[in-house]
Amino acid sequence: MSFDKVAIIGLGLLGGSIGLAVAQHLPGVLTTGYDSDPAVRRRAAERGLVGTVCDSAAEAAADADLVILCVPVGAMGEAARALAGSLRDGALVSDVGSSKQSITRALAEALPGRAVIPAHPVAGTEHSGPDAGFAALFHHRWCILTPPEDADPALVGGLAKFWRALGATVEVMDAEHHDRVLAVTSHIPHLIAYTIVGTASDLEEVTRGEVIKYSAGGFRDFTRIAASDPTMWRDVFLNNREAVLEMLDRFLTDLAHMREAIRAGDGESMFELFTRTRAIRRSIIELGQDDARPDFGRADHG
Amino acid sequence: MSFDKVAIIGLGLLGGSIGLAVAQHLPGVLTTGYDSDPAVRRRAAERGLVGTVCDSAAEAAADADLVILCVPVGAMGEAARALAGSLRDGALVSDVGSSKQSITRALAEALPGRAVIPAHPVAGTEHSGPDAGFAALFHHRWCILTPPEDADPALVGGLAKFWRALGATVEVMDAEHHDRVLAVTSHIPHLIAYTIVGTASDLEEVTRGEVIKYSAGGFRDFTRIAASDPTMWRDVFLNNREAVLEMLDRFLTDLAHMREAIRAGDGESMFELFTRTRAIRRSIIELGQDDARPDFGRADHG
Repeated sequence: MSFDKVAIIGLGLLGGSIGLAVAQHLPGVLTTGYDSDPAVRRRAAERGLVGTVCDSAAEAAADADLVILCVPVGAMGEAARALAGSLRDGALVSDVGSSKQSITRALAEALPGRAVIPAHPVAGTEHSGPDAGFAALFHHRWCILTPPEDADPALVGGLAKFWRALGATVEVMDAEHHDRVLAVTSHIPHLIAYTIVGTASDLEEVTRGEVIKYSAGGFRDFTRIAASDPTMWRDVFLNNREAVLEMLDRFLTDLAHMREAIRAGDGESMFELFTRTRAIRRSIIELGQDDARPDFGRADHG
Repeated sequence: MSFDKVAIIGLGLLGGSIGLAVAQHLPGVLTTGYDSDPAVRRRAAERGLVGTVCDSAAEAAADADLVILCVPVGAMGEAARALAGSLRDGALVSDVGSSKQSITRALAEALPGRAVIPAHPVAGTEHSGPDAGFAALFHHRWCILTPPEDADPALVGGLAKFWRALGATVEVMDAEHHDRVLAVTSHIPHLIAYTIVGTASDLEEVTRGEVIKYSAGGFRDFTRIAASDPTMWRDVFLNNREAVLEMLDRFLTDLAHMREAIRAGDGESMFELFTRTRAIRRSIIELGQDDARPDFGRADHG
């Protein structure tokens, strides 16, 4: 099966990129869109992020056979309630949020009896808003589907086909496992980055100007991650609390070991860790998930 | 004053880049070089990293009026001792290491009565070895000089001029302050990145394949930093222990606050931090220390 009309609720980086990607890769598919911010709706119309920008979520969803919620994790339930009454029979509701257990619960509650298959395209940049989206965002990226146990296999297949058309590779896993995997590959890295950038900006002995000037020593990569959308990330941490705390505690245990190695002058433990981590980097580059050029090619500029 | 003959000891990323940058920006200056690894010397000669690759540090340094030690921080003293006997009168010895107090002590001990001005170009990539260097590495980057109190101002001026010719902006500060600034802008980010990549690779519930596949969620940026040279970084942590432990403890305090905010469901504290950190990112981009394109332009590829 395939979808002929797709409604996108939330027209920021993810929603806008889906709209543009559909226009590029599935030109026969109609898109409608809605954002609760009128300024975002205006900009979305100017950029042509979707075929039709509507004045309400209900209007955008009215004829859709696929509705994709692209709002912060904490706003999913409310967004679903706003359009529940206008969904047509057989419409599938999905999303792009980064914590799947909480969203599965929120959508089941807001849309009783409806077909819901949560999804998470693991793609993004540090930019947000209606100007941030681009059609190639999902190329060579993974999209994880976390269908409930009673999901219709035809709908799961249709949603997988949709994401593959946008350039993604699709994996299916249960929501609990998703939340643990993403806690370590995405949520903890963001938490650490936000925290160290905050630590650096609060120092008294080292000025903010110095932190900025000498950021090429490693710090600047953390600032990129720490420039991500605050509402989105607040909601992720509020909604994937258990997995984040579990992974954070493992990281803290390992960091305490490294702290002790530094204190004790134990160069061997450091060397062992610093050597082992290189293998992971090589695999990420081999799998096309990063750019092997030094500094991602930043060295070519400036 | 200026230097006519520059000897580079250690022909990896930094040493090789200095050699190439001198050839490009100071074509009248002669360069010699040495590396303790014969394979590196051969490759350095093939790439033309310096004018003459010598078979010993003493030979490379014999006629130089500027000798730059580009070896791991822990090897600086030994490298200096190896060439101490062949230095000509008035030659200046400098370095590129990332921890200045320990190097200042090691070089003063190895080179009694000699002119020594430690330096640290804050530039690098995750790659290392004789193939990693390139002439533009220092463009739009800072180079910090940490001259001892009794340093000859003419030599400080000459060294500053040398680094400016290679494209860097020069700052002068004392070694203790340098070590604190770099602990936060470079050493702690590396320690955190190495540790979280190690944590992720040790998980049992999340496979290494999953960590690699879903690394685009944020983790991959940490793997880039965690691919840096293990010997260099072991030496940095062994030699800048006090400042690293001090800054690490501040980070751990802040991370404990964020952990508590997540546990308590305190979204306001998170939102406040996540908003504040964006300003630092903007300043880094305005100062030309990073690329404003989403994902540093990685989105253009693949």
